[in-house]
Amino acid sequence: MAPSPGQPTTGMDAESIAEAIMAGCRQMLARAITLVESAKEEHQEKAHAVLDLCLAKQRESMVIGITGSPGAGKSSFIEALGEEIIHRGLTLAVLCIDPSSRRSGGSILGDKARMEKLSTRPEAFIRPTPSSCHLGGSGPRTHETIMLTRAAGYDVILVETVGVGQSEVQIENMTDCILLLMLPGSGDELQGIKRGIMEIADIICISKTDGRQEQIASLAQADFEAALGMLPPKHEGRQRKVLLTSALNGKGITESWEEIIAHFSFMRKRGILDARRQEQLSTLLEGLVEEELKKQFMADPGVAKRKKEIEAAVLSRSLSPFSGATQLVKSFIDRR
Amino acid sequence: MAPSPGQPTTGMDAESIAEAIMAGCRQMLARAITLVESAKEEHQEKAHAVLDLCLAKQRESMVIGITGSPGAGKSSFIEALGEEIIHRGLTLAVLCIDPSSRRSGGSILGDKARMEKLSTRPEAFIRPTPSSCHLGGSGPRTHETIMLTRAAGYDVILVETVGVGQSEVQIENMTDCILLLMLPGSGDELQGIKRGIMEIADIICISKTDGRQEQIASLAQADFEAALGMLPPKHEGRQRKVLLTSALNGKGITESWEEIIAHFSFMRKRGILDARRQEQLSTLLEGLVEEELKKQFMADPGVAKRKKEIEAAVLSRSLSPFSGATQLVKSFIDRR
Repeated sequence: MAPSPGQPTTGMDAESIAEAIMAGCRQMLARAITLVESAKEEHQEKAHAVLDLCLAKQRESMVIGITGSPGAGKSSFIEALGEEIIHRGLTLAVLCIDPSSRRSGGSILGDKARMEKLSTRPEAFIRPTPSSCHLGGSGPRTHETIMLTRAAGYDVILVETVGVGQSEVQIENMTDCILLLMLPGSGDELQGIKRGIMEIADIICISKTDGRQEQIASLAQADFEAALGMLPPKHEGRQRKVLLTSALNGKGITESWEEIIAHFSFMRKRGILDARRQEQLSTLLEGLVEEELKKQFMADPGVAKRKKEIEAAVLSRSLSPFSGATQLVKSFIDRR
Repeated sequence: MAPSPGQPTTGMDAESIAEAIMAGCRQMLARAITLVESAKEEHQEKAHAVLDLCLAKQRESMVIGITGSPGAGKSSFIEALGEEIIHRGLTLAVLCIDPSSRRSGGSILGDKARMEKLSTRPEAFIRPTPSSCHLGGSGPRTHETIMLTRAAGYDVILVETVGVGQSEVQIENMTDCILLLMLPGSGDELQGIKRGIMEIADIICISKTDGRQEQIASLAQADFEAALGMLPPKHEGRQRKVLLTSALNGKGITESWEEIIAHFSFMRKRGILDARRQEQLSTLLEGLVEEELKKQFMADPGVAKRKKEIEAAVLSRSLSPFSGATQLVKSFIDRR
């Protein structure tokens, strides 16, 4: 079920919120995510306190990124894979990153129509696109949301993202395993497939291989396998698979899940999983430092005044933005 | 022609480089772009000096962003539109942003096979994807590259970008007008079209409306027009057009160029063009300030030492990344 995000947890202290999350209260998890996504200073402070507590109690969730171009059928695939996961007695959280709409958020057809079956399941927690984040200027708080969800004890966390551009780099820094969903297509399509997205994928699933598409699907499979052959292996000693799937008739869904399980087992055996999670923490720290630095810089009263002057000079073309930037930062640093 | 990027302009001073660019020397333009993209401190300093000089001599270039999903046919469209532009006696530069490959850069089939005809034209300057930028950590220097190209006096500058994710926000901050290229498709595809990309488009062209696709093209046109109708207008008093095009048989290419011209004329009349260019400068300044701040912070010897300690504590789980980030920045600020 997808509880409404609701209001941040006014009145409650961080300890109670964290305890409720770890006890499996989905309402509180949803509210804590809203707290994390809030741009308000007081919310951010409480969110960090909750995260500190949750970080100490991270469960062994499998965090899987599901990525692919718009129209690749990510929602339907997640719905089908989610059913398979629940059928195996596991609990599931689905988080969505959508960096593409700044002004009003979400797909034109809306997120409400998506994952209809899955959203009625008590074993599944679905958190749709955060719409307010980009407006607050801080970007989606996906890493923090994953941390809260891990503390809540979900066995599997699927993170849906549009896999083009910088979001794929983000997703690699936050997940244990990446599944790339591609539409079937012949050589033509390969022109459009960028290396970056193929390089970070652990498993490739060709979607919508049903009906008329069924005939070209095996051609596509061979194409993608050839493309993979042109790239260095992601992990020595593990061949990446290209699977044919259909969310419509269920083809390849069980196989996809089994391939994910096999990949986790490989990563655990080789120590890759632990190394990857350490790297994730390190990247998160780096991002947080940058953010905090910017916040402190912007809050400096001297900077605010000087910034206005420099901006005016740049806009009147009497100062170049390059010299202007150097001057502004120097005025901040030199006061030390 | 696409001159080889070559080595940065060792030995030459900023004045000579800027003069050569403004005199129309394409070799020097290519080299200055390489200088701008370099991560080396000395190159960056010289690049800023060249940019300062070029900024004073910006020509009235039309800067047009061409965006669309991978596989939408951007290269072929640009090739066809480029021929149209040159046919009208204008000079043309094509710059490419490709944020999607971090590890090795570029499409699998490579950039060499792209824009074959256009790259042999003396009226066209083509700058392919910068591959080294992301490795240097600074991101593609597209805004600076546009500035250099404007100083070189090209009438039209086409900036190609993959239109999903954050690159679309970047492109809006650097170009005067955005043309969105979409594959034909029915309602199904609309699910995948995110609002963000529709909201920033000034002109929408449906690509590859030839052969078998011709039949569904007008349906797609109606769909996109309906989708536009659901969004607020980008500019009051101007209806955005959806054009049917084919790079293969030339359909709609002349119309696309005429629509671009009409849009520029509208923006000029309303003062939108000037306002947009002021906003671009302001955004550039902001980005440069952030970058400079980070650079100075990282170069601080106290920070380097403290960062190692904090990172170790975070990785051993004895400190949360949230508290760690706050502590590290505080140690930098407090020394003022």
